[in-house]
Amino acid sequence: MKIISQIDKMKTHARIMRKAGKLIGLVPTRGYFHGGHLSLMQTARKQCDVLVTSIFVNPIQFGRGEDLEKYPRDIKRDEELAKSCGVDIIFYPSAEEMYPEGFSTYVTVENLTNNLCGLSRPGHFKGVTTVVAKLFGIIKPDLAFFGQKDAQQAFVIKRMISDLEMDVTMKLLPTVREKSGLAMSSRNSYLTEQQKSDASVLYKSLELARELIINGERRPQKIIKKMKDMIESVPYIRIDYVSIVDTTFMKDIFHVKGEILIAVAAFIGKTRLIDNMILNAEDQEK
Amino acid sequence: MKIISQIDKMKTHARIMRKAGKLIGLVPTRGYFHGGHLSLMQTARKQCDVLVTSIFVNPIQFGRGEDLEKYPRDIKRDEELAKSCGVDIIFYPSAEEMYPEGFSTYVTVENLTNNLCGLSRPGHFKGVTTVVAKLFGIIKPDLAFFGQKDAQQAFVIKRMISDLEMDVTMKLLPTVREKSGLAMSSRNSYLTEQQKSDASVLYKSLELARELIINGERRPQKIIKKMKDMIESVPYIRIDYVSIVDTTFMKDIFHVKGEILIAVAAFIGKTRLIDNMILNAEDQEK
Repeated sequence: MKIISQIDKMKTHARIMRKAGKLIGLVPTRGYFHGGHLSLMQTARKQCDVLVTSIFVNPIQFGRGEDLEKYPRDIKRDEELAKSCGVDIIFYPSAEEMYPEGFSTYVTVENLTNNLCGLSRPGHFKGVTTVVAKLFGIIKPDLAFFGQKDAQQAFVIKRMISDLEMDVTMKLLPTVREKSGLAMSSRNSYLTEQQKSDASVLYKSLELARELIINGERRPQKIIKKMKDMIESVPYIRIDYVSIVDTTFMKDIFHVKGEILIAVAAFIGKTRLIDNMILNAEDQEK
Repeated sequence: MKIISQIDKMKTHARIMRKAGKLIGLVPTRGYFHGGHLSLMQTARKQCDVLVTSIFVNPIQFGRGEDLEKYPRDIKRDEELAKSCGVDIIFYPSAEEMYPEGFSTYVTVENLTNNLCGLSRPGHFKGVTTVVAKLFGIIKPDLAFFGQKDAQQAFVIKRMISDLEMDVTMKLLPTVREKSGLAMSSRNSYLTEQQKSDASVLYKSLELARELIINGERRPQKIIKKMKDMIESVPYIRIDYVSIVDTTFMKDIFHVKGEILIAVAAFIGKTRLIDNMILNAEDQEK
């Protein structure tokens, strides 16, 4: 396994692989791997010839007062885990390498970023789409693997790929969960065991929503109310949003129909957690 | 020569050429070819195996009240001219093909677009960089040819290519001029012969600037003042801007030094004309 920090070196390497007809897979990450990342790498390993994972805590996707500085990092541990998943190359650039002096170009996806995390974290998705566009430019993967935990991110990137005709096939893999149901996240490392256990209420609220829909509920406001009630049963969890949106424009819907995204975000202290469920209302009928 | 209107068809075609090891050149245009376009195509023809020219009057780079509707078009004439220059493929998509319903992704270059045409035409460069990024995505040219007449555009696109690590080499070719010195432009077709003759004052003002610099003038305000006086000698020309900027950030400079861009924009009636000169102050010393 190679670790490459320089853009030019990564580009040259990827170019050689591409010329040799190898299928390149990319798992873009911020590092501090958990089961979700490992699942992405393991799946990617089976689908491509050359597996690249990028580790980059992208400063421009963090807002003011967010956890950029204290975001957990452990490159040595990540290296071991990546190796065990069969990763060929870790691309591990510095912020100065990715955003040299004079850097001025940004990719934004409008419409889909006005709600959910886009509303709570202004500028976040601009940072995400810019860095992903740049990673695609450097590595030119045939396949790129993302986790469903960041569902809005996935829909936004999918839109970018399609709108700008990037030659990348996006693979969206299911959220990996703790036994309790809690979605795995590097940010879970900020939590105590008790908090982790209590935080599984986010997942349980999504299961509740699914149950309600199976039983015929089609009014988003009713579903959201019951989800909020459940989450608020843990008094120290502060809800950021609970929303039900369409999967094309991420807009709040007024009737449950077709493919929908049920998304929650909540704070435990300063730790912000997200979770979601994508489902097709029609498939849920009894 | 092929004419392709569909993105998928263009992508497939370009992919086949690329796989065959052909060097692909792109001349992106809005059509209604003049000597400037022909010069780009002729030069490109010599430097690549497959020459593609795109013809697309890009609606998102035109502002409100600008000349999108009346922008001159003549695809039949363009086809003949392209053929005579040895173009292999004209990519000629519709606006619906480029911006289907739901299109939401934009590429913006900040900093470099706050001055000159970026100041006069808000949103213009966002439209330019977005469409060029998309054309690059579709055609994936090795080389892309632009004219110096749109100098700010060229610097902005160069920045985008570099920031997002697009694998395209930009070739910037000199402005082609009428005998009078007037820079060739599709918009010259809006002018009477008298107006065309008078409009050459823009070029003459640039020549005056160069002369002043050769003679040791280093104060931009003095140079700009003399350029404006010269342009205003044609009473019906309305100056939009006369600026001297650095070529990295397009910022007004306060002392002539290093590589500079001297740029002018002016209206004759509703017709907006631009012209510029790039020079290195140190090279101009007597």
